[in-house]
Amino acid sequence: MTTNSSPQLWLYDTTLRDGTQREGLSVSIEDKLRIARRLDQLGIPFIEGGWPGANPKDVQFFWQLQEDPLKQAEIVAFCSTRRPNSTAATEPMLQDILAAGTRWVTIFGKSWDLHVTTSLKTTLEENLAMIRDTIEYLRSQGRRIIYDAEHWFDGYKHNRDYALQTLEAAIASGAEWLVLCDTNGGTLPHEISQIVQDVVKVTGEWGMGNGEWGMGNDSSQSPMPNAQCPMPQIGIHTHNDSEMAVANAIAAVMAGAKMVQGTINGYGERCGNANLCSLIPNLQLKLGYSCITEDQLTQLTEASRFISEVVNLAPDEHAPFVGLSAFAHKGGIHVSAVERNPLTYEHIQPEQVGNHRRIVISEQSGLSNVLAKARSFGIDLDQLKAEAKQILQRLKDLESEGFQFEAAEASFALLMHEALGGRQKFFEVKGFQVHCDLIEGKETSNALATVKLAVDGKNILEAAEGNGPVAALDAALRKALVNFYPQIATFDLTDYKVRILNGHTGTAAKTRVLVESGNGRQRWTTVGVSTNILEASYQAVVEGLEYGLLLHSQAEAAGKLLVDK
Amino acid sequence: MTTNSSPQLWLYDTTLRDGTQREGLSVSIEDKLRIARRLDQLGIPFIEGGWPGANPKDVQFFWQLQEDPLKQAEIVAFCSTRRPNSTAATEPMLQDILAAGTRWVTIFGKSWDLHVTTSLKTTLEENLAMIRDTIEYLRSQGRRIIYDAEHWFDGYKHNRDYALQTLEAAIASGAEWLVLCDTNGGTLPHEISQIVQDVVKVTGEWGMGNGEWGMGNDSSQSPMPNAQCPMPQIGIHTHNDSEMAVANAIAAVMAGAKMVQGTINGYGERCGNANLCSLIPNLQLKLGYSCITEDQLTQLTEASRFISEVVNLAPDEHAPFVGLSAFAHKGGIHVSAVERNPLTYEHIQPEQVGNHRRIVISEQSGLSNVLAKARSFGIDLDQLKAEAKQILQRLKDLESEGFQFEAAEASFALLMHEALGGRQKFFEVKGFQVHCDLIEGKETSNALATVKLAVDGKNILEAAEGNGPVAALDAALRKALVNFYPQIATFDLTDYKVRILNGHTGTAAKTRVLVESGNGRQRWTTVGVSTNILEASYQAVVEGLEYGLLLHSQAEAAGKLLVDK
Repeated sequence: MTTNSSPQLWLYDTTLRDGTQREGLSVSIEDKLRIARRLDQLGIPFIEGGWPGANPKDVQFFWQLQEDPLKQAEIVAFCSTRRPNSTAATEPMLQDILAAGTRWVTIFGKSWDLHVTTSLKTTLEENLAMIRDTIEYLRSQGRRIIYDAEHWFDGYKHNRDYALQTLEAAIASGAEWLVLCDTNGGTLPHEISQIVQDVVKVTGEWGMGNGEWGMGNDSSQSPMPNAQCPMPQIGIHTHNDSEMAVANAIAAVMAGAKMVQGTINGYGERCGNANLCSLIPNLQLKLGYSCITEDQLTQLTEASRFISEVVNLAPDEHAPFVGLSAFAHKGGIHVSAVERNPLTYEHIQPEQVGNHRRIVISEQSGLSNVLAKARSFGIDLDQLKAEAKQILQRLKDLESEGFQFEAAEASFALLMHEALGGRQKFFEVKGFQVHCDLIEGKETSNALATVKLAVDGKNILEAAEGNGPVAALDAALRKALVNFYPQIATFDLTDYKVRILNGHTGTAAKTRVLVESGNGRQRWTTVGVSTNILEASYQAVVEGLEYGLLLHSQAEAAGKLLVDK
Repeated sequence: MTTNSSPQLWLYDTTLRDGTQREGLSVSIEDKLRIARRLDQLGIPFIEGGWPGANPKDVQFFWQLQEDPLKQAEIVAFCSTRRPNSTAATEPMLQDILAAGTRWVTIFGKSWDLHVTTSLKTTLEENLAMIRDTIEYLRSQGRRIIYDAEHWFDGYKHNRDYALQTLEAAIASGAEWLVLCDTNGGTLPHEISQIVQDVVKVTGEWGMGNGEWGMGNDSSQSPMPNAQCPMPQIGIHTHNDSEMAVANAIAAVMAGAKMVQGTINGYGERCGNANLCSLIPNLQLKLGYSCITEDQLTQLTEASRFISEVVNLAPDEHAPFVGLSAFAHKGGIHVSAVERNPLTYEHIQPEQVGNHRRIVISEQSGLSNVLAKARSFGIDLDQLKAEAKQILQRLKDLESEGFQFEAAEASFALLMHEALGGRQKFFEVKGFQVHCDLIEGKETSNALATVKLAVDGKNILEAAEGNGPVAALDAALRKALVNFYPQIATFDLTDYKVRILNGHTGTAAKTRVLVESGNGRQRWTTVGVSTNILEASYQAVVEGLEYGLLLHSQAEAAGKLLVDK
């Protein structure tokens, strides 16, 4: 239980930078913005956005956040120290960092003498100069600095004195946070504990860490006071190569670290980074630290699943705290015991992290989720218990067929309207045909789609071409409907995602398609599921058009068009 | 490094019992036998086979092992204490245990007073009698006993005195091992450490744990001496609900536990059990304990993947130590540094656990990645710098079109053969047609595909149906080729992944398809990219067939079919 007296920890999310190092994970700028805004909502105070300059995508990402900033969180730019034998002020890379326009910059530097000589191929003294010069330059340009000590633990074990000199260089030049990184992920908790204790002690002797971070200037302990923080603090950044990332981060916190870096769902290079979805509840519910509000904590499961959808990776059903199976109970003794006293087989209350108990054989519960979700669509189901139960049942049936509504709220809204008898029939779908052929050597393979619809009892048959079967289907549907609903001309398909559900049965597997549509002011997502990818796409595209028409008619009914996002 | 003086730990695998509690995992008797024999080869001394009597499958499994026993390992039967207010000698459940014919039996009992009163609905005194009576009876029938103290840590925290009384009851009646279970998985390492230390101390005061297990009778420290062991020892059994199962097991070992229970790949109920694939290398390579031989340790990766195949779950590519990505390196700097000195970016040598370093081929690849990758396919490009540069250029061109070879190594191998002029032409693709239609209200939407190929200058036109367009294409291709290449009958599509590349342009976006194929012995992945999802799928399926034929012809050329995995 978090109270006002709970010691404060600062969370630092690196999903958008270190997380995207995961093999097979790639994100668009749009994806990155959606993730950043969700992390902001979740209450993460520091969000590392990327390395502006390393690729054009990250430059644009920071530029877009300057136009439309996050609400609470600090977005952080990430960069290395300057190159050997140059000067920070003339380093183009650092100009890119300044252009990103963030208040905070994370600079990573080498702690391990072996890396200085092997990877950087420079002298130990020059490495210290690189750390000092880079930080001093960015400080002189008004930036606040988090210093990531790369390979800290290996460096410390090989040459403690030199490793400590790198930290001293970072502090002396104005870094406010020293983050100790277990870059190769090979360190075990008892070593982390000893080494962090030593660093806390030594840096304390240098005149650091005698009080709470930022206390001198800001009694609210905000990590973003305007004045410079007088006493740098220690952070921890761990990797999961020994299946110890979470345990190591916690060992560091118990040894005095005040910042914890990690990623949502533990995404990251090789075996991943420390998983914030496990760290946050462990720190907050078990160790009594204060990281995010209790209310934000209840959004953790949804944030985890939302982000896995955005990056198009199947959520880990067995993930601690947030996984579908995390509070699943199989029949018999467990179920009745857990119903009498949840404490008997559950280490926390699933609702604390926004998850819920699942009884594997006879599905139950979740009604409160449906009620909460309905409220978020402006529908008060609390007085309509029978309808709510019916919606829940329909939801569970569809989910067992492979539908998923976490990221497809427009489809869920349509489902609710259906159950309440208020689903407006803008059009009726009758069927489609798709034909596609490719002659080898020809540049492109065109697709032809025919759709059959009915509007106000009138049948419409329409055909269109596209450079793929789904584009052809979408074009044919619009062509068929635009004469009845001219506003369809303003709709567009903004995103399209495909997930194969049971991949091990090969191409006959079920396919789930998510389609994101927009009307220039709002965006919404719909879902379709089928063994036939074209049918699943068709379902999602059709619902996308329907929901767009619904939004338009609601706006008209309210006498105005909605202008908010 | 394990030496003769390394302290011995006993591993206890429960993949076949607790592991099968994982949602979605089910195994046949044949599967269980294959897994047990592989664990035996791996050197696991105790293998928990199941609860004979709880289901007919487990009864037969033990019976078959009596006919054809394991070579080294002890197979262990698992069972609860007798029911309240009965006697062990008349308990049918215990007759089933005796009939299983194992030397060792694991009996689990309640440690937590709350569970005794809530789940068992009996008195605290009767629970102690149940433990004593059950163990004494099985001892009188010549069985040796491992006692699993269920919910130990929760029980200890709620009522330490009572929890200790249950252990005392187990020891007094002849249990040789006391295994402390974190059944709900909610305990953190610092608590595990304190509580195990306390138990080691208290049981030591009762006259236990003064020497190495079994030392009095058997200086080889075998866990299976014929004489009874004079001094019971402590074991640990952890669950991963807090993402701490491995860390907790190690904390217990460092506090004095001598037996470690876990499962291969961490399979288990909810979030799983302690993962032996991470525990064994951590204990052996980092902490200097002796568990299995160095040679057996090099079989760990293969055992992990073999067992995931047998239980039909996709291997976790990001698993520590044994995952495909565990030693994967992106980016030029990493690769050249790791080749000069593996220590710079690897926490252990991958070969120690039978894994290997992988150079990930991606946009950021330099020439060193391509050369390293070629070597892994048995192609020495070091003397062919011009060809290597040409391959790198081709790779970058294709990647800028949206291809991605990180996970499509078979397509990359074909690309290399192409550049070196050695790509075998098994068949020539001429084109395809796909037709698909859906009438609303009809149950399914079938797809029809026609393909045109040429083999040895002979044109083939073939058509097939499928429950989706890709399945139909795949079926038509096989039908067209199987008369020329009968080995195609052994190929199958094992996985299919779709990724929309620039999703923000909607359904006209480029699509990347990854197809995984297999021949029963090997698996390989190919890639296709197009704005047309059907064309991208077609490319990947076609290359999958081609690579399978290449593997077959290489095996024939080597005078044999590969029989190893």
